[in-house]
Amino acid sequence: MLSNFNIDNIIRTALAEDINYIDITTDLLIDPSDMTKASLVAKADGVLAGIDVALRAFCFEDDKIICEKLIEDCSILKKGDVIAKIEGPTASILKTERTALNILSHMCGIATYTKKCVDAVAEFDVSITDTRKTLPGLRPLQKYAVLCGGGNNHRYNLSAAAMIKDNHVDAYGSVFNAISTLRERAGHMVVIEVEVRTLEELKEAIDAGALVIMLDNMTPEMLREAVELTNGRAILEVSGNVTLENVYEIAETGIPIISIGALTHSVKSLDISLRIEK
Amino acid sequence: MLSNFNIDNIIRTALAEDINYIDITTDLLIDPSDMTKASLVAKADGVLAGIDVALRAFCFEDDKIICEKLIEDCSILKKGDVIAKIEGPTASILKTERTALNILSHMCGIATYTKKCVDAVAEFDVSITDTRKTLPGLRPLQKYAVLCGGGNNHRYNLSAAAMIKDNHVDAYGSVFNAISTLRERAGHMVVIEVEVRTLEELKEAIDAGALVIMLDNMTPEMLREAVELTNGRAILEVSGNVTLENVYEIAETGIPIISIGALTHSVKSLDISLRIEK
Amino acid sequence: MLSNFNIDNIIRTALAEDINYIDITTDLLIDPSDMTKASLVAKADGVLAGIDVALRAFCFEDDKIICEKLIEDCSILKKGDVIAKIEGPTASILKTERTALNILSHMCGIATYTKKCVDAVAEFDVSITDTRKTLPGLRPLQKYAVLCGGGNNHRYNLSAAAMIKDNHVDAYGSVFNAISTLRERAGHMVVIEVEVRTLEELKEAIDAGALVIMLDNMTPEMLREAVELTNGRAILEVSGNVTLENVYEIAETGIPIISIGALTHSVKSLDISLRIEK
Amino acid sequence: MLSNFNIDNIIRTALAEDINYIDITTDLLIDPSDMTKASLVAKADGVLAGIDVALRAFCFEDDKIICEKLIEDCSILKKGDVIAKIEGPTASILKTERTALNILSHMCGIATYTKKCVDAVAEFDVSITDTRKTLPGLRPLQKYAVLCGGGNNHRYNLSAAAMIKDNHVDAYGSVFNAISTLRERAGHMVVIEVEVRTLEELKEAIDAGALVIMLDNMTPEMLREAVELTNGRAILEVSGNVTLENVYEIAETGIPIISIGALTHSVKSLDISLRIEK
Amino acid sequence: MLSNFNIDNIIRTALAEDINYIDITTDLLIDPSDMTKASLVAKADGVLAGIDVALRAFCFEDDKIICEKLIEDCSILKKGDVIAKIEGPTASILKTERTALNILSHMCGIATYTKKCVDAVAEFDVSITDTRKTLPGLRPLQKYAVLCGGGNNHRYNLSAAAMIKDNHVDAYGSVFNAISTLRERAGHMVVIEVEVRTLEELKEAIDAGALVIMLDNMTPEMLREAVELTNGRAILEVSGNVTLENVYEIAETGIPIISIGALTHSVKSLDISLRIEK
Amino acid sequence: MLSNFNIDNIIRTALAEDINYIDITTDLLIDPSDMTKASLVAKADGVLAGIDVALRAFCFEDDKIICEKLIEDCSILKKGDVIAKIEGPTASILKTERTALNILSHMCGIATYTKKCVDAVAEFDVSITDTRKTLPGLRPLQKYAVLCGGGNNHRYNLSAAAMIKDNHVDAYGSVFNAISTLRERAGHMVVIEVEVRTLEELKEAIDAGALVIMLDNMTPEMLREAVELTNGRAILEVSGNVTLENVYEIAETGIPIISIGALTHSVKSLDISLRIEK
Repeated sequence: MLSNFNIDNIIRTALAEDINYIDITTDLLIDPSDMTKASLVAKADGVLAGIDVALRAFCFEDDKIICEKLIEDCSILKKGDVIAKIEGPTASILKTERTALNILSHMCGIATYTKKCVDAVAEFDVSITDTRKTLPGLRPLQKYAVLCGGGNNHRYNLSAAAMIKDNHVDAYGSVFNAISTLRERAGHMVVIEVEVRTLEELKEAIDAGALVIMLDNMTPEMLREAVELTNGRAILEVSGNVTLENVYEIAETGIPIISIGALTHSVKSLDISLRIEK
Repeated sequence: MLSNFNIDNIIRTALAEDINYIDITTDLLIDPSDMTKASLVAKADGVLAGIDVALRAFCFEDDKIICEKLIEDCSILKKGDVIAKIEGPTASILKTERTALNILSHMCGIATYTKKCVDAVAEFDVSITDTRKTLPGLRPLQKYAVLCGGGNNHRYNLSAAAMIKDNHVDAYGSVFNAISTLRERAGHMVVIEVEVRTLEELKEAIDAGALVIMLDNMTPEMLREAVELTNGRAILEVSGNVTLENVYEIAETGIPIISIGALTHSVKSLDISLRIEK
Repeated sequence: MLSNFNIDNIIRTALAEDINYIDITTDLLIDPSDMTKASLVAKADGVLAGIDVALRAFCFEDDKIICEKLIEDCSILKKGDVIAKIEGPTASILKTERTALNILSHMCGIATYTKKCVDAVAEFDVSITDTRKTLPGLRPLQKYAVLCGGGNNHRYNLSAAAMIKDNHVDAYGSVFNAISTLRERAGHMVVIEVEVRTLEELKEAIDAGALVIMLDNMTPEMLREAVELTNGRAILEVSGNVTLENVYEIAETGIPIISIGALTHSVKSLDISLRIEK
Repeated sequence: MLSNFNIDNIIRTALAEDINYIDITTDLLIDPSDMTKASLVAKADGVLAGIDVALRAFCFEDDKIICEKLIEDCSILKKGDVIAKIEGPTASILKTERTALNILSHMCGIATYTKKCVDAVAEFDVSITDTRKTLPGLRPLQKYAVLCGGGNNHRYNLSAAAMIKDNHVDAYGSVFNAISTLRERAGHMVVIEVEVRTLEELKEAIDAGALVIMLDNMTPEMLREAVELTNGRAILEVSGNVTLENVYEIAETGIPIISIGALTHSVKSLDISLRIEK
Repeated sequence: MLSNFNIDNIIRTALAEDINYIDITTDLLIDPSDMTKASLVAKADGVLAGIDVALRAFCFEDDKIICEKLIEDCSILKKGDVIAKIEGPTASILKTERTALNILSHMCGIATYTKKCVDAVAEFDVSITDTRKTLPGLRPLQKYAVLCGGGNNHRYNLSAAAMIKDNHVDAYGSVFNAISTLRERAGHMVVIEVEVRTLEELKEAIDAGALVIMLDNMTPEMLREAVELTNGRAILEVSGNVTLENVYEIAETGIPIISIGALTHSVKSLDISLRIEK
Repeated sequence: MLSNFNIDNIIRTALAEDINYIDITTDLLIDPSDMTKASLVAKADGVLAGIDVALRAFCFEDDKIICEKLIEDCSILKKGDVIAKIEGPTASILKTERTALNILSHMCGIATYTKKCVDAVAEFDVSITDTRKTLPGLRPLQKYAVLCGGGNNHRYNLSAAAMIKDNHVDAYGSVFNAISTLRERAGHMVVIEVEVRTLEELKEAIDAGALVIMLDNMTPEMLREAVELTNGRAILEVSGNVTLENVYEIAETGIPIISIGALTHSVKSLDISLRIEK
C-alpha cells in the first residue's frame, strides 16, 4: 500500500544520516564474507506497522541479505514475538540495523497508540482519525501506521479536502458565503468541512448547509449539546487535545469522528530489537 | 549552527507533503493581497528550539512575509510567551502555518524533555547525551534540539566514532584484540568506545586499555560497582531504558555520562500555536 | 497559488535541458555587460496562464534581470498584447528565453482551450473539469492553467478522492458493497465517485447511494435519459472523448459536470514571443 | 537508446503526482493478492514510441508485474493492435495504469504526427526535424519519439551546436565577424548555423562562409529564390509555423531540412488504453 | 557563463560533505556575532578560474557574508595577489573556507596547466583542447576552467557530436559506410569526427569524406606525414598522452588541434589560501 | 565498504554528464543486439581502487552486462594486468566505458600515490593520512582510495572531530581555555586536535593538556625539536606541503602521523583502458 517512491527516499536519507561514509567499527573489524542469522523481536506488546519498510531498509544496500517476514502489518504483537528473520553478511546487517529499527519502532509506536485509542472506544460507533500534525518527511509512514492501528486518515494535505476556519469565514462575512463560494470554485470532488468553536457557530454552520463540521476544543458537555443540536443534519468531528486518557469520555457524547494529533506528533516508540544469533 | 543545506530539504519536503498542489480552502477563498499579523505563542512551559527553522519555513514560499524573533533558542518558555511576530499575506501565512508549527513543536518537545533530564541531575557532574535512535531524516534537527535543552551529542553517525560491541569482539577473540586492531586501522581522530554488559566484561575492557566504556542496561547496583571497579581508569557511559523517571537514580551512582534514546525516539511535542490578530 | 517548491524543479530541469553547459553562441559572442530591454508579446488571441512561472524562469539564473508584469493570469489576451517587460543582461535573457516561452506557451494553450470550452457552454449551468490525463511532471502547471481558463480541477491524485470502476465493483459483487466498504474504510473527508457505462449500472449506482456518478463515453441520448432517470438524486459527470467540437451537444443534455482529458493531454501551445528592443 | 537516468526521474515524478500516498479506491478495496492479465491496446492508428518507458512505469513499483512486449517502437500501429501484455497484482496494475498511459499516449502522439509529416514529403529528399520548443522535463522522451516517427533531431541544447541570430550579429557589426569570432572560440566540434530573415541576409551569410543557414518564416516563393541563390553553397533549413498542412508546399521548394516546432509543442496524444481481462 | 543550476548542486554537496551537521570546533567555540575580514590570496603563480563559484560557496549558507572580487577569471595570478575580500561572521567564514578553497584551487590548477600548454605552443596556429576524461560531477567546472586557461572545449558529451572509432567502423565494413550512414541518421547539426590509428586508416577516412579526423597516439614523424598526406582536405586532431612536456614537439608537426586528457584527469591544484585579518 | 547511496549519485551524475541524451555515434550505428567481450587492462603499474564502483557503472544502465572481477581493491597492479572481464551488448559497453574509466583511473591514481608515500616511509612507524582537501562530491571515493593505498583517513568532516586553530584560540585568550571549553561542550566521543605553528605554541598546547597536536608547515629541524620537546606527552601530526619527494625526510624526524593534502587535491590518474575483443 505504501509506494516505494515514498519509502526509498526516507530509507536512503536515514542510511546516509546513520552511516555517512563507513561504519568505522564494523567495516574495519568484520570480514565482509562473515555471515549471520538474526531475528527482529518485539520487546513489548503492541501492533505491527512498517515491517516491509524495515526489511527493505535491511536489504537496501546489500542484496545478499535475505529476509523472511513472519508477522504481517496490523497484527497484534506480544513481547517476545519474532517478527522476521534476517540472514546475510554480518557487516551489512550491523550497518543497517539501527536505521531499520528506528523506522520500525516509530511506526509500531503509532499503530500501538492508535489501537489503544480505538479499543478504548470500541463500544461506540466512532472513528479514530489522524490530523495534519505529522513530523516533517514522515507523513506517508505515519498515516499508514495509523491505518495499521485501526484508525482512519483525515485529509492527506491541503489539496485533498477543504477546512473552513475563522479566518476564511471572516473574509466572506458569513459561514454561508464562505461555503457557497468554495462549493462553486472547488469542484465536485472536494469535501468541505467547517471548523466551529461555539454552539452559536455550529448552528450557523448547519444553517449554511455544512455537511461536515469540526468542533474545536469543546468540553464533553458542549459536545453533547452539539450532537443534540445537530440532530443528524451534519457529520460531526471533535478535535483538540484528545488523548488516550480522555477519548472514552468524548466518544460517550455520541460524536462519530474523533481526530487526535498525538497519534503522530507525540509518538512513543515501541521497543523492538535485533537479536543476533551467534 | 544548523546549516541551511540540512534544513531546506526538510522544510521543502514538509511543505510539499502538507500543500501538495494548492491550499484549496485558502487559495480559493482568501484574496492574495489580504495582509495579516500573527504571533507564535507557547501554550505550555518548555524550552525553545528551532525558532530559526520555523521562521524560515514561514518565509520559504513568500518573501513578503516578515518575521521578528522575540526569543532565542535555548531559552525557557513560559505558557503564554510570544516567541515571534509574523506579518505578511494572510494566504501565505495560513498555508505554511502547520508546517512551521509541526517542526517547532517537535524540536521544542525534545529540548524541553532534555532540559528536564538535565535539571533532574543538576546536582551531579553528569552529561545527558542523545543516541543514534533518531527519526529518519530528522537527525540534524533532533541532535540540535538536544543541545538547546542542555544535553550533549553522542557520535553523529557510524563514521564519526567507533563503538565495539559483542559481535565485533567475537570476531577478534578478545576485547583487547578488537581494540588494538581498530586503533591501528581507524586513524588518530577516532574515539573508540567499548560496550559491556557485565562487570566481567568491564574488567576485561579496562585491562584491554579501553578509554570509553558503555555500560548497557545495568542496574544502579551494578553501576555503582562499575564506578568503583573502574576507579577513574576509563570514562563510563550508561545506556538503555533511561527516562526522566529513573535518571536521578542513575546519576547518583557516579557515572558521568548518561545517554537517553527517548530524547529523540519518543518525543512529546510542545504545544505552540499561531495566534492570528484580526 | 502555485507553490515555488512545485515550480522551481520544473524550471531548473527545463533550463538544464536547454542550456546543459553554456549557450555556445551567446556566451562566446555577447559581452556579459551588454544590457537589453525586451517584451513578451502575444502572437495570437487566448488566455494568459503562467506568467509568474515564466518570469521566474527568466530571473532564475540572473538576479540582475528585472521583470514588470503588465497582464495578470486569467486575463484575455489579444494578438499583439504586451504581457510583460523584461530588462537585464542580454546574454542572460537570450539564454532563458526559450525555457520561459516553452512553459508560458504551453500553459496559455491549456487556458485558452479551456476557456473556449467554458464559453461554448456558457448558457448552461455546467462545470468544465480536467482529468488525471496530464503530462508527466507537469500536473501542477497544467491543473493551474485549467483554473485560469475558467475550468475546475477534478481530483489531484488517487489519494485525494475515490473513483469506483468496474474492477473495484467486481471484487465486491455489487456497487452497493463496494461503496459501503469504501465509505467505512476511507474516512469522512473522501468523496466517492462511481463510474458507470450503462443506464443499468447507473440505476444500480443510484440505488446503492452513490452521490457522484461518472457516465463513461455515453451518447447524448443516453445522457439525456441518465439525467431524467437520476432526477437529482446524484451529481452526474460525463467523461470520454469530449472536445470543443461536441461539448455543447453534451452540455445540452443537462449534465452539470463535463470532464475533458484533451484539456491537458492534447494541448496546442499559444504562440507567444520575446521581442527584443534593440 | 533512451537512458534510464533520464527515464526514471520522469516515471518517479509522474507516479508521485498520480498516487501521492495511496490509491484510496484500489488500496482499500482490492486484495493485494488478487492477480490480473491486461493488454495495452491501440484505439487509433499511429506509430509506436515509448513502449519500453511505459512498461518500465508499470513495473516500477512492483516487481511481481511481468510485461511482454509484442510490438517494437517505430512500428506502425493499427487500431485494435495489442502492443503488450501485462500480468500481475491487480492493485499494482490499476495504480500505475494512468501514469503508463499518459507517457505512452504522448510519445505515440509525437511519433504519429512526425510520421505523417515525413510521409507527406516522402517524394522529396528532405529531413523533418524537431526544435528546442519542447515541454519542460520531457525533452529526452520527445526527441526520442521524433526519431521513432522517422524525423531527425535538431541540436539537443545550447551547448551542442551554435545558432547565430540577429542579436548576435548586431554585437559584431556583420555576419562575417560573428561567424569568424565564433569559429575561433567554439572549437572544432561545433556546427554553426546562421538564422536569416531576408534574401539580403541570406546572401550576406553565404558570403560570410556560413555552411548551415536557417530561413525564418519565409514564403514558398522566397524559399525557392533562396535555394536558387544558394546554389548548393550552404545547407538550408526552413523554420517557423510549419505544420502538416503546409509541409508539402515547403518541401517542394527544394529546401532539404524542415524543422517543425509543433512536433513537440502542440502534441495530440494517441488514444491507447489498458484492457483488463477479467 | 557557468549556470547556477550546475554550480549550486556541487557547492551544496561539497558543503554537506565537509560540514555534515555542525563545525564542532567553530560552532561550539566562536560567538555567532563575531565578525571577521579575510582575503583570498594566491600562494603561487597561475591563472584564475572559478572565483565566482568560490565566492558563491562562501555566501551559500550565510547572506551576511559580503564578498568583493578584485581579480576576474582568466587573469594571470602572481604569488601574493589578493583575489578577493570576504567579510562577515567569523563562524560562517571558517565553516565554508575549506569548501571554497577546494573548488577554487582545483579550477585554478586546470586553468594554470592549460595556459602553460597554450603558451608552450604560442608560436603555432594550434588549439589546445580538453577531452571527455573529466572527473565525475565536475565536468561543468573543469570544461569552464579550460576556457579560462585559453583552451577550447571538445564535445561536452556523446550527444553533442560524433566520434567514429574502430568498433563503429567494424559494424559497417568500411569508414565510408559508417560515415554516410551516420551522416544520414544524425541530422545536420552534428559534426562527425573519425578516429584513426595508422596512415592507412587516415587515407581511407579522407577518401570517405571525413572532415574531422583524430590521430590516436601517433609519433611526431607519423603526424608530419599525416599533415602532408591530408594536405588541407580535413581538420586533423592529435590525441593520446600529450603533456606539457611533449606538446611543443607535436605542435611543430603542423597539426592544428591537440587534445589533452591530462588537463582534467590529472590536475595539480593551485595553492590558494584564506588569510584572516585579526 | 563504500555504500551504494554514496556511489550511485556519483555514477548517475557522471553518466548523465557523459551521455546527456544518446550516444549519437553508438546509438545510431551499432545494432542493440550486437554483443561484445572486453577487458579492463592496467596500462601502468599501480594500486587498484574502485573496481566495484567501475563495474557498477558499467552495469548501471543495462543489466544484460555481466562483469567478472579478477583483481580486488588494494592489490598491486602491473602494467598489462587484466583487472576484470566485461561482457554484454556492445552499444551499452561503449556508452559507459568513459564514465567507468574516469572513476577508476582517478581512484587508482589516489591509491597508487598513497602507496608510494606509504612505501617511502615503510621503515618508520608512521601513518600516512589524508586531509579535508578533497574534490567536491568525491570525498567518499577519495577517502576510500586512500585506504586502498595503505593510508589512513583523517576526520571525514567538521562534525566528526575537532581542530582548534589560531582563530579559535584567539576567541578564548589561551589554548588552555579553548581546549577546556570545547572539552565540556563537545561531548565524550570527540577527539580534539590543536594546530600549532611554533614550538612556543606547541609547549603551550602540551601544557594545556592537548592530546593530539598538528604541527603546521614546520621544517624537519623544528619537527625534530618538537618530538623531543613533546617527549610522548601528545600525539604529533605534521601537515603542509608534504609530497612523495619530502615525506621520507619528515618521517625521519620521528613524527608518527603525516597528513598529505596532495593525496586527494593533486591526483595523477592511473592509465587504465578497456580492450574490446573483436
